[in-house]
Amino acid sequence: RIMRPDDANIAGNVHGGTILKMIEEAGAIISTRHCNSQAEEPCVAALARVERTDFLSPMCIGEVANVSAEITYTSRHSVEVQVNVMSENILTGAKKLTNKATLWYVPLSLKNVNKVLEVPPIQYTRKEQEDEGKKRYEEQKLDRLETKQRNGEVIFPVINPEPHTVGYSQSSLIHLVGPSDCTLLDFVHGGVTMKLMDEVAGIVAARHCKTNIVTASVDAINFHEKIKKGCVITISGRMTFTSNKSMEIEVFVDADPFLDEPRERYRAVSAFFTYVSLSKEGKPLPVPQLLTETEDEKRRFEEGKGRYLQTKAKRQAQMQQAAQ
Amino acid sequence: RIMRPDDANIAGNVHGGTILKMIEEAGAIISTRHCNSQAEEPCVAALARVERTDFLSPMCIGEVANVSAEITYTSRHSVEVQVNVMSENILTGAKKLTNKATLWYVPLSLKNVNKVLEVPPIQYTRKEQEDEGKKRYEEQKLDRLETKQRNGEVIFPVINPEPHTVGYSQSSLIHLVGPSDCTLLDFVHGGVTMKLMDEVAGIVAARHCKTNIVTASVDAINFHEKIKKGCVITISGRMTFTSNKSMEIEVFVDADPFLDEPRERYRAVSAFFTYVSLSKEGKPLPVPQLLTETEDEKRRFEEGKGRYLQTKAKRQAQMQQAAQ
Amino acid sequence: RIMRPDDANIAGNVHGGTILKMIEEAGAIISTRHCNSQAEEPCVAALARVERTDFLSPMCIGEVANVSAEITYTSRHSVEVQVNVMSENILTGAKKLTNKATLWYVPLSLKNVNKVLEVPPIQYTRKEQEDEGKKRYEEQKLDRLETKQRNGEVIFPVINPEPHTVGYSQSSLIHLVGPSDCTLLDFVHGGVTMKLMDEVAGIVAARHCKTNIVTASVDAINFHEKIKKGCVITISGRMTFTSNKSMEIEVFVDADPFLDEPRERYRAVSAFFTYVSLSKEGKPLPVPQLLTETEDEKRRFEEGKGRYLQTKAKRQAQMQQAAQ
Repeated sequence: RIMRPDDANIAGNVHGGTILKMIEEAGAIISTRHCNSQAEEPCVAALARVERTDFLSPMCIGEVANVSAEITYTSRHSVEVQVNVMSENILTGAKKLTNKATLWYVPLSLKNVNKVLEVPPIQYTRKEQEDEGKKRYEEQKLDRLETKQRNGEVIFPVINPEPHTVGYSQSSLIHLVGPSDCTLLDFVHGGVTMKLMDEVAGIVAARHCKTNIVTASVDAINFHEKIKKGCVITISGRMTFTSNKSMEIEVFVDADPFLDEPRERYRAVSAFFTYVSLSKEGKPLPVPQLLTETEDEKRRFEEGKGRYLQTKAKRQAQMQQAAQ
Repeated sequence: RIMRPDDANIAGNVHGGTILKMIEEAGAIISTRHCNSQAEEPCVAALARVERTDFLSPMCIGEVANVSAEITYTSRHSVEVQVNVMSENILTGAKKLTNKATLWYVPLSLKNVNKVLEVPPIQYTRKEQEDEGKKRYEEQKLDRLETKQRNGEVIFPVINPEPHTVGYSQSSLIHLVGPSDCTLLDFVHGGVTMKLMDEVAGIVAARHCKTNIVTASVDAINFHEKIKKGCVITISGRMTFTSNKSMEIEVFVDADPFLDEPRERYRAVSAFFTYVSLSKEGKPLPVPQLLTETEDEKRRFEEGKGRYLQTKAKRQAQMQQAAQ
Repeated sequence: RIMRPDDANIAGNVHGGTILKMIEEAGAIISTRHCNSQAEEPCVAALARVERTDFLSPMCIGEVANVSAEITYTSRHSVEVQVNVMSENILTGAKKLTNKATLWYVPLSLKNVNKVLEVPPIQYTRKEQEDEGKKRYEEQKLDRLETKQRNGEVIFPVINPEPHTVGYSQSSLIHLVGPSDCTLLDFVHGGVTMKLMDEVAGIVAARHCKTNIVTASVDAINFHEKIKKGCVITISGRMTFTSNKSMEIEVFVDADPFLDEPRERYRAVSAFFTYVSLSKEGKPLPVPQLLTETEDEKRRFEEGKGRYLQTKAKRQAQMQQAAQ
């Protein structure tokens, strides 16, 4: 579809959140279709996890987004989908790869939303494809367990914060989950949640550096729990780390099912977003350093630095491999 | 994309206008891409006409719409696009043809919106394709000239109308044209206009028969004039004819460019929509007969009857041909 | 959240209606949450009234709206919420108070929409807070009864009106109430209604003075009756009064529940909006005087003048108080 002014920031760059939402919709369609192809009973595929995603080149208003999706692995209860997004300038015909994402879905019964169904196996053209898929499956399973433990932190508001501190740019957004945010099972589309997360992260980044900012990448996102229609969700973001030219923002989604008496507020999703600041010509700008004050902030900064260096090392390894 | 509650009426049937909007977006993308492929200068394809379209089977919430578009003819200054819409139930895998539409686009220069550019010719696999396309081109050209003369009528409001009269169900809607309604050239997408036209026609039909109604077909729509960003558009609908099981509604679109002082309000588009009334089981219901009061209403009723009988005869001829 | 192009007019000023919608969403969340905190049964807070609201400074595209809400009084069956909106320019860091609003909500049972539940009392830090709240409660109750009687007028269309007459700028808009306009109880969010009312008032104001216009204030709005999903609502606006630099527009909302046979069309909401005309530099411009023709128009003009002078006097008294 054609990108509209509402999909983009003032400088005309399409929000990362809009792209994540399109990716998730494509993933949900292909995996729901697959899981119903040999179905015991009708089901809907629910997003369980999105792997780390890089935004390779910004998309602009007026360009057409071409989204293609393919199922690359199936375990007994989950489906791995690979989605590619190309931006196409229909005036010049130029096409660019914007985004490559890997998503994991789980089929839930249409009759009983708590019942996970079995996934029909796919055919692999080569044995290695299955083995590699299995390895990815095991890795993400382990990572999901770990994140679950990291959760539970809360963002406290700060009065009169100094510029460039964590408290200065932290932000949160409250949203009442309505019918058009939801799937057939009346819980929120993963893509809707990701779009709101990107919106909060973008506000945090813009408050910190006061320039035009764009999403550079999103760390793996785990969807721990479903969010039901009628919940109030709070999406909170705080900056955790800055390198010379990038900012890392941690985003939490907490759901408050206030109509369901016994249920307490719970952490539904969390993730790290990386943003860069762009000049008017689209070149990356230096970013003001994040001032850490408390012990926790210093610890999170170091952890962020660890993730940053790890990603950098991985990318250099890939480039060397590609160059050989 | 997946059909959402917002795309549908209370009974879960997707609005004809939503489908028309998707069709037009697909048509605009493919024809803009084609017209820029050998371009002297960058251009945007603007919708000039939509041929008569039948809604073959209703689409429902939760189904996926698959839209495919193909260029079938090019004249010197216009492109004919054929768009097919399939509805797919991803739970059962069932697919149905919802809609087949033919649209005509004209390339307008990005630098000068009033300059119509030349269209690169397409290659035909068979000579007959070109000849048939040329015939369709000449026919629609003639029809466009005729409609231009038919225009200019205004809908006068009626105080305390009787049920089932024309005045009883006539409705109008005003809309302020915002940025996300518009193309790169800052005039309204044809699809946005068609969606609003279907919305008014649906309200007229529902007021008349007070049941669940769905779009059955849309007559050829001609886009006489562009509508610019910032205009207020008034979309008015009145019932012109009822058969036993269908209603014909005439819809006008008038644009009021109130920020451009010298320009008067003008007629931008007009068309006839046909609606049917459905029972809870999805079967067509009888429709209350339209009560005509004035001479003009009686004349329009007879004209509507003429169109109805002509369409009926054409369909029977096609079925006989198909049966042979 | 960040203000987008669709939230604003062509000059980039965010529509008053968009701000009213955000205010109402915040109010609905905080009061629904409060009413469910010690609930006999689950409920949803429905908007009953919005007190007079001034738009202190325009908000622009790209700015972030910070909305904060607090419960300031509870009666047995209603909740008073105070909502503040700050606009923040995240590039400069500048913050401005845009709006302060007071809203009244009533908790309706989720099982039976016609049953009003009891509100858990709040704790006041000082006795005067409770007394002042009670006074505000009594005042608004009285005012609501009065407005109910004032209602019932209809806007008659005028053929070929002269510029600057009432008939020249009067406008109306119909809207079919869809799922995303509605709360969990399937009636329209108050904020959605207010946004449509502001849209009509804005079109009336723009037609009258043909310049860039913005909402300056909204009179108290009473929500007399709920509007159900599937209704067609007609929102009509007519100018009632002009001062040198402001226009007062009366807006009615009538609901037509055409699928519920026995129910007649009814008046659901009415209010007065005040608009000002702005130059390109954002300075208030003189407004063409409204030409009144009929006795009713002259009477309404005088009534509007009364409201204008009263508000002016009140504001001057406040400024003197503040200066002391």
